[in-house]
Amino acid sequence: MEAETTPVIRGPYRRGIKRREHIVKAASEVFGELGFVGGSLRSIAQRVGASHATLIQYFGSKEGLLAAVLDDWTEQTKRSPMLESPRGLAFFRQMPDLMDFHVHHRGLLELFITIAAEATNPSHPARDFIRRRYTNGFRVWTGKLREAVEDGEIAALTDDQIEAEIRILTAVLDGLELQWLLGAEIDLRGLVETHVEQAIARWQKR
Amino acid sequence: MEAETTPVIRGPYRRGIKRREHIVKAASEVFGELGFVGGSLRSIAQRVGASHATLIQYFGSKEGLLAAVLDDWTEQTKRSPMLESPRGLAFFRQMPDLMDFHVHHRGLLELFITIAAEATNPSHPARDFIRRRYTNGFRVWTGKLREAVEDGEIAALTDDQIEAEIRILTAVLDGLELQWLLGAEIDLRGLVETHVEQAIARWQKR
Repeated sequence: MEAETTPVIRGPYRRGIKRREHIVKAASEVFGELGFVGGSLRSIAQRVGASHATLIQYFGSKEGLLAAVLDDWTEQTKRSPMLESPRGLAFFRQMPDLMDFHVHHRGLLELFITIAAEATNPSHPARDFIRRRYTNGFRVWTGKLREAVEDGEIAALTDDQIEAEIRILTAVLDGLELQWLLGAEIDLRGLVETHVEQAIARWQKR
Repeated sequence: MEAETTPVIRGPYRRGIKRREHIVKAASEVFGELGFVGGSLRSIAQRVGASHATLIQYFGSKEGLLAAVLDDWTEQTKRSPMLESPRGLAFFRQMPDLMDFHVHHRGLLELFITIAAEATNPSHPARDFIRRRYTNGFRVWTGKLREAVEDGEIAALTDDQIEAEIRILTAVLDGLELQWLLGAEIDLRGLVETHVEQAIARWQKR
């Protein structure tokens, strides 16, 4: 009885999962290189040696494949060393480590930056996803800066000041990542560390 | 005699120039919305009511049209209020005005950010153009910061410090522009002003 109810992943089903993962990986690369609009199902199918029909069978449409790619991106980036748990300034001091993660996962970063820039077009299918990522990041980061004030790590800041600080900090990370992806010979980790420490020093002196 | 040597732009030729301008404008919009890879010659041709053959006749190839779009972008952005002439800190204090220009020329900004993100792919045809823009901007901006030191407006900075300051400042502008393009309700001018004044205050206190 028990043996029958234990979920056993059978051969063909397991092969299907592997196949699906393989397609998502190829699609992430193609969308990262060519964008969602420019990355065709045909080029993704070619990369995995599958047919266009197989891709449709697995994901329904190009938008369905994009959704799977973004889900996968979300899962992969959870492995980053940027934890939500540290309170206040300790949270921001993890940011140089996050840059190390980006440097070692260039494909994930390229996918995000390429899709984010494409999603400046209001009709882009990933626009809601990208906006949610920013809104969520903004909520967490402003909360951490508020904690730093509450814990007495830094001087008081108004809500407007907290918003401005986090908008600018987010911009520094995105902008430096873009420069690095464009091949500038910069020390991504070092520059982020410099900026974060300058910001903390300013917050403490207010 | 004189009348014959005066350059008179004849009807058909003038119509050709207008036609060409019209195509470049449509291509700028399409590439800004869909990227270069995703923006097809067919969709550009449709937007101006021309044939694919006409586009090839005028520009030779899609890459040729991109080159024309980037040349046009360069001309258009020369009208920005960001002048190269002011020395030292006065140069940086123009940056909030540059943001006003971006807000009023959203299409030019969207084209640049979209193409820059796409050009993170090393084989992108605009990669050299985008890299040259950054290299050139970097050279001018570091020169202005060096002037601020020379003129005694701010304390001394090492070459490494000057490089880091300009890398971060460039990132702030790009990153905030991206947030604004993604529909965040931010005061682009105000945030850039805040950052520039904080940076200047820090440079003066060193």
